[in-house]
Amino acid sequence: MNLPRERLVKTPEIRTLRASHSTRTLEIVDQTLLPGEWKIVSLSTVGEAARAIRTMQVRGAPLIGATAAYGLALALHADPSDAGMHVAYAELLGTRPTAVNLRWALDRVTAAVRHLAGSARAEAAWKEADAIAAEDVETNLAIGRHGLALIEQLAASGRSPVQILTHCNAGALATLGWGTATAPIYLAHGSGIAVHVWVSETRPRLQGARLTAWELRENQVPHTLIVDAAGAALMQQGRVDLVLVGADRVAANGDVCNKIGTYEKALAARDNGVPMYAAVPSTTIDWTLADGAQIPIEERGAEEVLRVGDAASVAPPGTPAANPAFDVTPARLLTGLITELGICRATAAGLAEMFPEHRA
Amino acid sequence: MNLPRERLVKTPEIRTLRASHSTRTLEIVDQTLLPGEWKIVSLSTVGEAARAIRTMQVRGAPLIGATAAYGLALALHADPSDAGMHVAYAELLGTRPTAVNLRWALDRVTAAVRHLAGSARAEAAWKEADAIAAEDVETNLAIGRHGLALIEQLAASGRSPVQILTHCNAGALATLGWGTATAPIYLAHGSGIAVHVWVSETRPRLQGARLTAWELRENQVPHTLIVDAAGAALMQQGRVDLVLVGADRVAANGDVCNKIGTYEKALAARDNGVPMYAAVPSTTIDWTLADGAQIPIEERGAEEVLRVGDAASVAPPGTPAANPAFDVTPARLLTGLITELGICRATAAGLAEMFPEHRA
Repeated sequence: MNLPRERLVKTPEIRTLRASHSTRTLEIVDQTLLPGEWKIVSLSTVGEAARAIRTMQVRGAPLIGATAAYGLALALHADPSDAGMHVAYAELLGTRPTAVNLRWALDRVTAAVRHLAGSARAEAAWKEADAIAAEDVETNLAIGRHGLALIEQLAASGRSPVQILTHCNAGALATLGWGTATAPIYLAHGSGIAVHVWVSETRPRLQGARLTAWELRENQVPHTLIVDAAGAALMQQGRVDLVLVGADRVAANGDVCNKIGTYEKALAARDNGVPMYAAVPSTTIDWTLADGAQIPIEERGAEEVLRVGDAASVAPPGTPAANPAFDVTPARLLTGLITELGICRATAAGLAEMFPEHRA
Repeated sequence: MNLPRERLVKTPEIRTLRASHSTRTLEIVDQTLLPGEWKIVSLSTVGEAARAIRTMQVRGAPLIGATAAYGLALALHADPSDAGMHVAYAELLGTRPTAVNLRWALDRVTAAVRHLAGSARAEAAWKEADAIAAEDVETNLAIGRHGLALIEQLAASGRSPVQILTHCNAGALATLGWGTATAPIYLAHGSGIAVHVWVSETRPRLQGARLTAWELRENQVPHTLIVDAAGAALMQQGRVDLVLVGADRVAANGDVCNKIGTYEKALAARDNGVPMYAAVPSTTIDWTLADGAQIPIEERGAEEVLRVGDAASVAPPGTPAANPAFDVTPARLLTGLITELGICRATAAGLAEMFPEHRA
């Protein structure tokens, strides 16, 4: 994996994934144990990779994509046949329904090895997974540079610190490096701009409290944790200058599917004139979907709502619970999308102009 | 305390407060232990009453008001002097800053006893507190009848079940009976209308998960628990017909201060054309405030955000956290206010028409 060419600041010292071709293993951090424990888990079969994604030991759209790519490479070591490849592809694709990077990464590895003889497939797949991982770091750094300009403008207009609200974890932990929504923040902080981050805790799995607060702390970025319901009030009080979030899938019209609660943040941002951007690597754009209504929303288990962290059930035993993991923010509510190629309007035209090869 | 004259349904079998003049004690339920334990706590001094309010053993604007009224009566048993009364008034008023019912109840008891000889004050105060408690039940039942008409209209238009979203606990547990936002729900359920309640868990203290889910279950009202961030997505998907919330203080222009997160629900309701009403006993209206911007918002301790239920800290130790307990929903976002006198627009004119004696 290449280091970023330009190191304005120290890369966040968080290594979410380490692949060793010689030992045919993939090391990941079990993110379900953070922030309490930094435990490395070694994966050597496609089944282990699929389980790591399904159980959210790895999570975050870009990291899911890269893990799946390596998972397919591991599968091809064991069985490089077409049949074996198809089974592994299906197993990995079935782990999580919403993040489109998963399908994108599997398609890319498949395309790279499909025409090869069986004996050459595993190595080619591994190389392609390496490329996906390395490109993710570059992509996020590019998003960071474009987003940095927004923060610089706010600082130049006198905001000090620049108050940024984020939701869930679209951070270094969700990617191979820098994060998507956090990349502009890390670059701004590293270049001496005073920033402060409001971290929305992100129930039910608390990725904001457990992961974003942790990685901001590791990188000495000032931050304050809030409950999800407090974001709108902070915006109403003029205490937020910019909202930055990630995305799990973006439709061709700019609708953004992201962690449940993102839509509420967008409504509050619009109501209070606070600019809000989604950080969107092009791998997260699903050009096959005209709008966000068609994005499949993962419904997770009730126990995540009924239990909180290690607490015994907080609701009466047997309480029914619904647990949609994502929501769709209508493009009209967003100020724009920050892609690796630049910032564009969250519209079909804005995206098509930025990515003309996908023009319908 | 009188029972409601008209019992369309069984009064929710929840007794939040029991006062005994002969023993000069006030029994409350320690709501911090619910739903795990139904523990009665006996209060016999003003200090104990103040502590019960401050530690949120009793909570909910109407119940806080009644508890404070009895607290002042307890104080006057011990010291009926003007000085004693003023000290007790200040101690009770200082427990929680946002709910205006607290000040209203203390002022009402004070006005009833101020002109009396010391020896007569305690008994008169106790009687006034009894009246406040009894009137609260009547008020909520009246709110329930007015709100029931809204639910009946939705049922008549074919919604079955009528899908109602509520936030926090403006239920029987927050009052002396029926609840404010829940009174229409209990009456609808009791009269055979199919209703289903989406219960927003209400971080950080989880009053939705711990209290509303519990009391709906006790009264066999179908319900489903969700995280706070999921409400907007449900509305976007057409799965909510009506939003009903309570209020801690309402300004003369109809701005509603209520549990943190209410504002986000109102934004989502407006964006999706879902009617939203705040259930507002007139005791919750602060006629001295022109708008909600002047309402004092209680900032509670960071530990409520950092810990969840009995869980060890979910965020890294030492993470800074902000914990505003309430927010202000601009009147423009609300469909109306349900008062004991009827439903009115959430505007200065709407409120003044409903309560002409307070016309500015």
